[in-house]
This record gives sequence, C-alpha cells and structure tokens, in this order.
Amino acid sequence: MNDPRVMKHSLTRVSATARERIDDALAVERALEIRVDGRPLAVTLRTPGDDQELATGFLAGEGVLRRAADLASMAIVPATCSDEPDHADARLAPGVTLDWSKLERHFAATSACGLCGRAHLDSLRAGLAPLPPGAAVSARRLAELPARLASVQRTFAATGGLHAAALCSEEDCEVEVLREDVGRHNAVDKIAGWLLGRDRYPANRGVLWVSGRAGAEIVLKAARARLPVLAAVGAPSSLAVELAEAAGLTLIGFLREGRMNVYCGEARITA
Amino acid sequence: MNDPRVMKHSLTRVSATARERIDDALAVERALEIRVDGRPLAVTLRTPGDDQELATGFLAGEGVLRRAADLASMAIVPATCSDEPDHADARLAPGVTLDWSKLERHFAATSACGLCGRAHLDSLRAGLAPLPPGAAVSARRLAELPARLASVQRTFAATGGLHAAALCSEEDCEVEVLREDVGRHNAVDKIAGWLLGRDRYPANRGVLWVSGRAGAEIVLKAARARLPVLAAVGAPSSLAVELAEAAGLTLIGFLREGRMNVYCGEARITA
Repeated sequence: MNDPRVMKHSLTRVSATARERIDDALAVERALEIRVDGRPLAVTLRTPGDDQELATGFLAGEGVLRRAADLASMAIVPATCSDEPDHADARLAPGVTLDWSKLERHFAATSACGLCGRAHLDSLRAGLAPLPPGAAVSARRLAELPARLASVQRTFAATGGLHAAALCSEEDCEVEVLREDVGRHNAVDKIAGWLLGRDRYPANRGVLWVSGRAGAEIVLKAARARLPVLAAVGAPSSLAVELAEAAGLTLIGFLREGRMNVYCGEARITA
Repeated sequence: MNDPRVMKHSLTRVSATARERIDDALAVERALEIRVDGRPLAVTLRTPGDDQELATGFLAGEGVLRRAADLASMAIVPATCSDEPDHADARLAPGVTLDWSKLERHFAATSACGLCGRAHLDSLRAGLAPLPPGAAVSARRLAELPARLASVQRTFAATGGLHAAALCSEEDCEVEVLREDVGRHNAVDKIAGWLLGRDRYPANRGVLWVSGRAGAEIVLKAARARLPVLAAVGAPSSLAVELAEAAGLTLIGFLREGRMNVYCGEARITA
C-alpha cells in the first residue's frame, strides 16, 4: 500500500465475548505549516496529498491570494524528522501584500490547536507523565455504552447536528455527564470544565466517550485531563494513535453495534 | 422551545419529484471569546450552554488552569448585539501566571478560523458581493450525487476516517474533482486550491459537496470561493445558515437517500 494518505496499524477487535488481533488502515494525519514569504502563518493537521492545493486554497480562503497570478511560487517541503511539521513555502507575486497584523487577529484560535507535531509530541513527552495502567474497564459494559448514551443525548435527536462527549465511570461505564456542541472539541472542553469545577481535574480515572472521530486534538485533551480511556464512535487518525501511545492512553474507535477496535492500551480492557 | 442550543428554521425538503415547506430545528452555533484577566485569548464557535464549563475546560486543556483553585472567577457575558461574540471573562488566582508569548505561538491556526461573529459577518457584508442567482441545478441530479460520489471516494473506504469535498458542475452535477482529508476544512481548501491552480478562483459557478456537517467555516470558504451551491451530507448549524443567507448562497443539508433539505437560496434548485 503506497498511498501516503493511509497507514497500516495493528489493533484488537473486541466484542463482549471475543477478541482478535487484526491489521487495519488508518487515515494519516500530519502537521503542515503554511509559510508566506518565509514567515509561518498557520499550522494545519491534514492528510498528506494535494498539499499544494491545500496551502493555496487555504491562502485563497483567507483572502491572501485573490487569483492564480498572486502566487509567485509554492513549494512543499517534507519534514526532515518525524517531530517536525512538513511545510508549504508560498512566495507572493511582486506587489501582492499581506497584512500580518490583521491575519494574526483573525487567527485567534477556534479551538485548542497549534497542532504542530513537534510542540505536541514534546509537550506529551515532557509535560505529561504517562498514565498508570489503572483500573480495568469491562468490554461488555463498554459495548453496551452506545445504548445508554442514546437515551441521554437529547439535542442531537432534535437537530441531527451536534457532537457529544460523555464522562463514564471505569467501574461500570455508567454515564456521569454528557455535553453536546457543534464542535466535538468544545464538547470535550465542557467535560474537562465539569471535572475542574468539581476539583476532579486532572481526573486520573474514567472513560471519555466522543461521538464521531478521534483526531489528535481530542487525544491531547484526554491526555491533559488524564482520562485513561478514550472511546470514539468513529475512526481515529494516525496521529491520534501515535499520541495515545505516547501518553499511555487506551484508545478505542468504532465503538458501535456491540464491538470496538482497540488501537493501544488494551491492557485496561477486561473480558 | 426554550433550549438555547436549538433554533427553529423553515426549510424546503426536496426530492427528485416533490418539494414541501417544513419547520425544522438547527443546532445553534455562536462565537464565544475567551478572555483571561481582561485580555482576549481565543474565540471558539460553540453551541451555547455550559459555557462556564467550556471556557474552564478549554483553559485547563491549554495548561492555563491546573486545578480548580487556579481560577479566581469566571463570568459569562452575553453579547450586547448580534454581530459581537459572547465572552467568557476568566480571572486567575493570585500567583497563577500565563505565558502569553508561548500561547500565541501555540495558537497558530489549525484552520481558517478566527470565527468571531463580527469579523465574519462584516467580511461577508463588506468584502463579498452577494452571489448572482446564477444557473439552475437539477434536484434530480443532486439527489443522484451521493451514488456518483461513493464510487470515487477511495480512501474513506479503506479507513472510515476521512472527510471529503467535491466540486461538481451546475449543469448536470458531474464530479469534477474530489479531495479527502481528516479535516473537512482541509478537503475544502484543496478544492479551492485546485480551482486557483486552474485560474478558476473565484469560481462564480459550481456545486461544492462536503461529507458530514456544514458549519460556519465551510460556508465562509464556499462564499469566498464564490461557489453558489453548497451541499452537505449532514446538518448545517444556525450560523452556517445565517452566513449562507448573507452571502446569497444556496445551502443544502442532509443530501442523502434521494432527498435534501434546502435551507436558503432554493431558487437555484429546479425540479
């Protein structure tokens, strides 16, 4: 498989009664720093491929490029080591200017980001002690979680438009609190704030469940809150798995229909 | 309905052969600016409710708050007019400090963001001429689009983990180009970059299709690329609909199983 957008990974497929080791494919997620005339403007977590289009389109969307002639050149430069982001080196045509002060105001974050590979891997390695093996979570109770959550996820039912995050106990996977938001990262922040408000942050125990997919950002939030088990309804990205491994997290994807894929930390899952 | 997380909206439900006007519920999306000791740190687009938890949890995830005692107070202040963001006013406990220079580096954007309600509504009103009524798109051809896309969306099939965006012709909804990425905004940027590389940016015609939901950010990218029709597999947010109306875009959600919901700009959809 030579597609740079896909990475092979071994995982454990777990149901209430069985587990098997399989190879599966992950969508690759890697940082790309976008530089304009040598100065870093933004970092995006993307799936490699079509990077020139990505950087060009990003700059067009931000109003930096208004037409093809505004761009003198664009080079995509792969990282020289795995802890660095790849970068796109855009050079503007003569006479095309960029108001950095306006863009920097504009780039106030929408979410916990700055997801440069280096910054995050470093912070995980330096700032966060790996989570202890911790308590065991029952595969059977995890497999039953979607049904329990469906009954409490109210707004989604009304709009079909909300993500959700929930905090569950390790002992029996009972839902302690569920929060909903258009942004998955916001729903996770609400859980972290709920913990902090009860003086339970960092948590050092518990299961964090999220609707949809698990990207790097969600894994980082779980690791910083020291929630040892992260379970997502959808797929994790390659960077999510790498970060979960570095933090000693248990990462579960495709938790639905009575089964789940365990990407790392399966020692915390009991039969 | 008094839930601040849900907003009623009239829309037209369209299939290849019928259309009916109905009321439906949208997930509310509004900007929240997070300030620390009076200084703006970040803007997030969120669904209102549990805002104190959201702002607290965001600050914990960024390492600003390490425990409940680090926070002296947190006030949520609603916007005084609709073009401004709400804001969260966090005050740190004595002795708790924040390294602004480190955070500002950290907050280099992951995606086209800075989604303060004011900045965006202003840019739409001032910088973007509303799109002309433009060519008509056949409801029947739109309804058939998911089947045509399924055959070209390769990596998703392998990983289950990728979003996609596609550019289709107005005349017959044929797929011109499809791009995939872990981030939906990246897939849309790749389409914009594809257009710019062919000197077709801004486009002034065409249908932009996106997997998943349509949030404000996706509508802004479509409006800036002057793609008059945006069709999403999932739900739009309230802010997505507001921005699409302001830009004169046709916004379609829940395009699947032979039907779609048209939230605004239905004049471009023909029977």
